[in-house]
Amino acid sequence: MKFYDFTPAPSSQRVRVYLAEKGLELPTEQLNVREDEQFAEPFTSMNPFHCVPFLALDDGTVIAESMSVCRYLEELHPEPPLFGRTPAERAVVDMWMRRFELDAFIPLLHALRNRLPNFAGKVVPGTRTDLPQSEAMVGRGREMAGVLFDRAEPHMAKNEFVAGPDFTVADITGFFTLRMAYALEMDIGASWPATHAWFRKVSARPAFQL
Amino acid sequence: MKFYDFTPAPSSQRVRVYLAEKGLELPTEQLNVREDEQFAEPFTSMNPFHCVPFLALDDGTVIAESMSVCRYLEELHPEPPLFGRTPAERAVVDMWMRRFELDAFIPLLHALRNRLPNFAGKVVPGTRTDLPQSEAMVGRGREMAGVLFDRAEPHMAKNEFVAGPDFTVADITGFFTLRMAYALEMDIGASWPATHAWFRKVSARPAFQL
Repeated sequence: MKFYDFTPAPSSQRVRVYLAEKGLELPTEQLNVREDEQFAEPFTSMNPFHCVPFLALDDGTVIAESMSVCRYLEELHPEPPLFGRTPAERAVVDMWMRRFELDAFIPLLHALRNRLPNFAGKVVPGTRTDLPQSEAMVGRGREMAGVLFDRAEPHMAKNEFVAGPDFTVADITGFFTLRMAYALEMDIGASWPATHAWFRKVSARPAFQL
Repeated sequence: MKFYDFTPAPSSQRVRVYLAEKGLELPTEQLNVREDEQFAEPFTSMNPFHCVPFLALDDGTVIAESMSVCRYLEELHPEPPLFGRTPAERAVVDMWMRRFELDAFIPLLHALRNRLPNFAGKVVPGTRTDLPQSEAMVGRGREMAGVLFDRAEPHMAKNEFVAGPDFTVADITGFFTLRMAYALEMDIGASWPATHAWFRKVSARPAFQL
């Protein structure tokens, strides 16, 4: 298999943190996303959705979507378990990952893409369109993330990690959620101290030294 | 275990279609979401995120998030497989589910919640906030879904189902995505005929007679 990567992309970093936590290394090729290399052959045929990273298996199957890549690797390398140990644990990890992802990670990702000048014409990941950057998407992204942090804070105050006592992929999603919130100047420390403390703890792990 | 449900909610319907495709039945209790029953005890303690549906296990574990509930049930009842049969198949199903969910289902869900009068004060699922309904979210939701349908259409023209030759949970997510697009008056038949044809085929399955 081969991992097609673009080091600065947050989605690539999500997978690389996962690999580091698992102690895995993959044969890797860098795609120069800034020069649209993912739109050239053979990459555009391998992944017509043009998102990076993606994983190509030896039989030609291509797995895009960072978390789908991690799920695949987890089945091949179950230890240490980062998606939970039992069906109930796996469901709870998935639930917390979805809460952070759908209610904050994705809204913040859209906020950044609708704000930063280098994403003009690229507001949807993997596309080049004439959809304009929208200030309303920036504001709503921040507001939605704030609502999620309000709801998560009591849970974060009582738990060591996002999904409970163990470090899991939900912490990886949570870390990148918080990093975008800081980039959008949300004052996490003042408003959500337990969430801020959890972020500092996770940030200190060796796998997170990006 | 007991399934806490609200029949008209699309998230509940996603799980019920899954149950029907699997031939499963669960002990079920209806929560009257229109009268905010999910904010009353014991439900607010069971699920502080106040989203319906959720599944309570006999040991007290609560699994919210419709797709996390389905993942849990899939581990207990693997046949017929609706998340894929092998690690690679499961990753591909997950990838297609994420593409539809993140790029269209979620943007359309926000479009509807920012448009329909009965969602005023409830633009984020499971919350009661003063976030105003935003016309920009409606427009952007439609635009983003259109971008996803543009990218998916060539794949839909070549494949029987969303994730390839077999019916999977990605089709359930796709069905509810399309249903929201029709509700937002997107002309699917005219612009994305293969996607429209797939929707009509899936809609005819017995499990989808909601």
